[in-house]
Amino acid sequence: SRQIRAPRGGTLHCRSWLTEAAYRMLQNNLDPEVAENPKHLVVYGGIGRAARDWACFDQILQSLRELGDDESLLVQSGKPVGVFKTHPDAPRVLIANSNLVPKWANWEQFNELDRKGLFMYGQMTAGSWIYIGSQGIVQGTYETFAEAARQHYGGSLAGRWILTAGLGGMGGAQPLAASFAGAASVTIECQQSRIDFRLRSRYLDEQASDLDDALARMARYTAEKRAVSVGLLGNAAELLPELARRARAGGLRPDLVTDQTSAHDLVNGYLPLGWSVADWQQAQQDPARHAQLTEAAARSCARHVQAMLDFHAMGVPTVDYGNNIRQVAFDQGVKNAFDFPGFVPAYIRPLFCEGKGPFRWVALSGDPEDIRRTDARLKELFPGNAKVHRWLDMAGERIAFQGLPARICWLGLGERHVAGLAFNEMVRRGELKAPIVIGRDHLDTGSVASPNRETEAMRDGTDAVSDWPLLNALLNTAGGATWVSLHHGGGVGMGYSQHAGMVIVADGSEAAEKRLARVLVNDCASGVMRHADAGYELAIETAKKHGLKLPMLR
Amino acid sequence: SRQIRAPRGGTLHCRSWLTEAAYRMLQNNLDPEVAENPKHLVVYGGIGRAARDWACFDQILQSLRELGDDESLLVQSGKPVGVFKTHPDAPRVLIANSNLVPKWANWEQFNELDRKGLFMYGQMTAGSWIYIGSQGIVQGTYETFAEAARQHYGGSLAGRWILTAGLGGMGGAQPLAASFAGAASVTIECQQSRIDFRLRSRYLDEQASDLDDALARMARYTAEKRAVSVGLLGNAAELLPELARRARAGGLRPDLVTDQTSAHDLVNGYLPLGWSVADWQQAQQDPARHAQLTEAAARSCARHVQAMLDFHAMGVPTVDYGNNIRQVAFDQGVKNAFDFPGFVPAYIRPLFCEGKGPFRWVALSGDPEDIRRTDARLKELFPGNAKVHRWLDMAGERIAFQGLPARICWLGLGERHVAGLAFNEMVRRGELKAPIVIGRDHLDTGSVASPNRETEAMRDGTDAVSDWPLLNALLNTAGGATWVSLHHGGGVGMGYSQHAGMVIVADGSEAAEKRLARVLVNDCASGVMRHADAGYELAIETAKKHGLKLPMLR
Ligand SMILES: NC(=O)c1ccc[n+]([C@@H]2O[C@H](COP(=O)([O-])OP(=O)(O)OC[C@H]3O[C@@H](n4cnc5c(N)ncnc54)[C@H](O)[C@@H]3O)[C@@H](O)[C@H]2O)c1
Ligand SMILES: NC(=O)c1ccc[n+]([C@@H]2O[C@H](COP(=O)([O-])OP(=O)(O)OC[C@H]3O[C@@H](n4cnc5c(N)ncnc54)[C@H](O)[C@@H]3O)[C@@H](O)[C@H]2O)c1
Repeated sequence: SRQIRAPRGGTLHCRSWLTEAAYRMLQNNLDPEVAENPKHLVVYGGIGRAARDWACFDQILQSLRELGDDESLLVQSGKPVGVFKTHPDAPRVLIANSNLVPKWANWEQFNELDRKGLFMYGQMTAGSWIYIGSQGIVQGTYETFAEAARQHYGGSLAGRWILTAGLGGMGGAQPLAASFAGAASVTIECQQSRIDFRLRSRYLDEQASDLDDALARMARYTAEKRAVSVGLLGNAAELLPELARRARAGGLRPDLVTDQTSAHDLVNGYLPLGWSVADWQQAQQDPARHAQLTEAAARSCARHVQAMLDFHAMGVPTVDYGNNIRQVAFDQGVKNAFDFPGFVPAYIRPLFCEGKGPFRWVALSGDPEDIRRTDARLKELFPGNAKVHRWLDMAGERIAFQGLPARICWLGLGERHVAGLAFNEMVRRGELKAPIVIGRDHLDTGSVASPNRETEAMRDGTDAVSDWPLLNALLNTAGGATWVSLHHGGGVGMGYSQHAGMVIVADGSEAAEKRLARVLVNDCASGVMRHADAGYELAIETAKKHGLKLPMLR
Repeated sequence: SRQIRAPRGGTLHCRSWLTEAAYRMLQNNLDPEVAENPKHLVVYGGIGRAARDWACFDQILQSLRELGDDESLLVQSGKPVGVFKTHPDAPRVLIANSNLVPKWANWEQFNELDRKGLFMYGQMTAGSWIYIGSQGIVQGTYETFAEAARQHYGGSLAGRWILTAGLGGMGGAQPLAASFAGAASVTIECQQSRIDFRLRSRYLDEQASDLDDALARMARYTAEKRAVSVGLLGNAAELLPELARRARAGGLRPDLVTDQTSAHDLVNGYLPLGWSVADWQQAQQDPARHAQLTEAAARSCARHVQAMLDFHAMGVPTVDYGNNIRQVAFDQGVKNAFDFPGFVPAYIRPLFCEGKGPFRWVALSGDPEDIRRTDARLKELFPGNAKVHRWLDMAGERIAFQGLPARICWLGLGERHVAGLAFNEMVRRGELKAPIVIGRDHLDTGSVASPNRETEAMRDGTDAVSDWPLLNALLNTAGGATWVSLHHGGGVGMGYSQHAGMVIVADGSEAAEKRLARVLVNDCASGVMRHADAGYELAIETAKKHGLKLPMLR
């Protein structure tokens, strides 16, 4: 089977660095270091693919090699469908993935088309060629914890600890993110193998022998203000209620409670109370036991949420981390399950209001030194931004690169274009070995409508209005991003979201400088606009501070 | 209440003709000669609006007056939400109307947002400022009949007659379109007032006294090859079966059968057999009688469709004109109701395969003479195109302008940009009094996904894939159209369609020339691409003939 790896170095395989960037990033998405299942072109997120099939993949590369600087390649659900005459300031690639007319926007329709080779699931950054491995989830979680720190603890988690569960694919980022954010943490996980894996990769510092030991460690680390992460083997549905009981009785209280077990999938994702892991895994394999398993898991989730509600009632900040556990408990009769909020309205939305989101960049040279230089430059550019400094230091030290060296760093309006222009300058001056490609997740301030996640509980009730991501894509196309994408169903599945991607190349040229100045402002400004329009004060202030022209706000 | 009328003449109210065009076209959409209910900003198609409310309308105009040539205005469901820095070759306005995340894409969600002033229904050309009155439906129907002529009768309907029903808002265009296409016609209509209205406006030539008289006239007009249109008062559910019976018994046979009663709305749209119009209208007002009315109407539709099936079985070309009457009959137990096709797969799709669609242009000067000159120029440009000549001659003679003088003319790939460039040349040479604005309906070859209408029964089963209209909008933005729009729900309502609009200004400049050459090719080429991708031979041939670069087809 084929092994894909993006070319490195300063030699072009295409006619410009704009097309070369797409050429390398598509291949990088399928690098075995990056992709979850490269054999099937799957990058991440279940079945999120980079191209529809190998023939399409090869032809996209071929088309990119030939593409002129006044042409644009159209990619339709992973298939290269047309090359059209545009102009140098237009995007070189335009992408639409997985979009279905709403009445037909479901998995049945998707699967039927997919089976026939007519369709593809693009997830967010899989089909838009800007996935960079697990660094993204670490920073996303870090931002969430850091924002909680800002809201509840004057910006510092020193001497505080976070209580959560789940050390799976995404949840495994929690202990490292907590450490980065300056907090000690206990993460409950029912599978020893998962704990071992995270210990090995240094995402988790140590394992407690039991509950008492875990609490003792927290008492010590918080007193010493040491951000050490501790794993605890056990069932959250049993341990969380016990921890709540002790806290109520005057024991140690966590400073933040959340959860990343896979409660959204009651067959495969949540170990029921009293079950052994072995029996759980057997039941997963046996469809005849799924009803029983689902019911037991749901009942356990209800207990779990009840404990979270107890912490919430004690005044401990408590959030749902997008795993649907509140809904499961609610359906089990826990009437006040939604008393504590989801993480987006609680912690991410304030960031979105300032245009902050998962900005990222990749060194096309393949040289890690290029990323180290950009890291250093960024610290110079934002001398007063302690959160950014902290993140960059720790990421530089503890995040292993996957594929082409890359960095993620949540920046906001007024910051992203400064970074982009600085990188372009560095390329021009020859301080980097090759151009830098800049992008972001579709989970960003102006680029997504997803009523169960990013746009849950918008202040004005416009959760489902998807004009905004569509405008975002049109605006980035108009501004001259290098590639722009429009997707459906990322993150939450068919029917539940629409979102837009944007990638732009800093090749050191003056033309790139102009495009970067436009696109990196507009892209996040459109998110500030969207939140200002929904009535968020912080967004309105941000818009005013940066002089955005929002006609109906004056 | 306010009366809106677009400014005429050569004086700018904005800073360029690009923004002036949007400025005039928005106002033109609300001209009482053009709009159905201008007081409520409703242009056409139920509640299709041009702007969200009067405050938004005023602010759009204000923003357009101020907009620089390197700025773009964003309009979100009729509200001007932002002005961003772009560049001269980017669109001046980017529009997204009525878009909802699929799971929430229904009328309940729409209505709730609309009631709160947070949303707007853009229909197709209402919210994208390129509606030109009833000329559009006349030409659309003409094209349908002309394509039927090409497929079944060697291109000529001389000596032939069309049998149909319904002289309502859209159906009323049928007799005139039939005459334009060279066919005599009988249109059955149950309301005398509707017949009178169409006689007055010269859309209908004469009225027959009864069925025998109508048939006698058809015998005469077909013998004389005269394209005279005849209205016949009565119920189609009664008269159509009788006509089928006579035809089977050797009587006069129509050469094409269709129907435009409002069978899609069984309460308000279809008079049941045996009911008087007065009783029908009373029952419409009385919700208690709706069940009875619906049932009676459905049963009558079943008889009506049975008669259409009889004609179909006799070998008479028979099509459903998008009023859902086959579905109604099918639900009533007419198992073979779908034996005859819808009009799009039958007659419109072949046109789409050649990139043909509802191309249109408007004289910003307001001078009808400008349109006459463009008509003449078009005839020079396409000397061999008899259909275009015939249409332009008849339209010039019989279509009254509404608002700014405009012309619609279905042109295809290889024709649209030739027309656009010629108009630009005329503006530059001063042969026209002001620039020309060029656009099209969203019902076009590359711009719509609508599984119950424009993309019904696609050869490869991709009816619901909406990547295509999204790519179309991105491509037109990249190419430099003057405004670009992305809508949801046009034509068939919330949940059932996604589509894109495009308008571009020919201001006589060299920059416009380049943009026109790109956009007017790409826009319809993207439709040829979409149909080629679906496997239509005619589209594949068209693509080859015009040298389109479709990477997976080589
Ligand atoms: N942006 C978002 O909305 C967002 C971000 C991150 C994670 N999430 C959600 O978080 C959840 C976790 O994601 P993941 O990729 O890590 O899933 P995963 O399935 O890989 O990991 C879940 C982990 O929870 C453990 N677990 C299950 N039941 C348990 C129990 N009763 N007690 C203790 N541990 C238990 C499992 O052993 C497993 O290691 C998912 O529901 C995901 O959707 C959402
Ligand atoms: N692009 C398309 O898909 C397309 C285009 C044109 C029309 N249509 C469809 O065609 C239909 C007509 O549209 P409209 O705007 O003209 O509607 P309308 O309601 O204005 O007109 C319908 C007419 O049919 C007459 N009628 C009703 N029942 C009758 C009967 N039993 N016998 C004779 N006459 C009868 C009514 O009196 C009325 O004049 C609609 O269903 C519309 O959706 C679709």
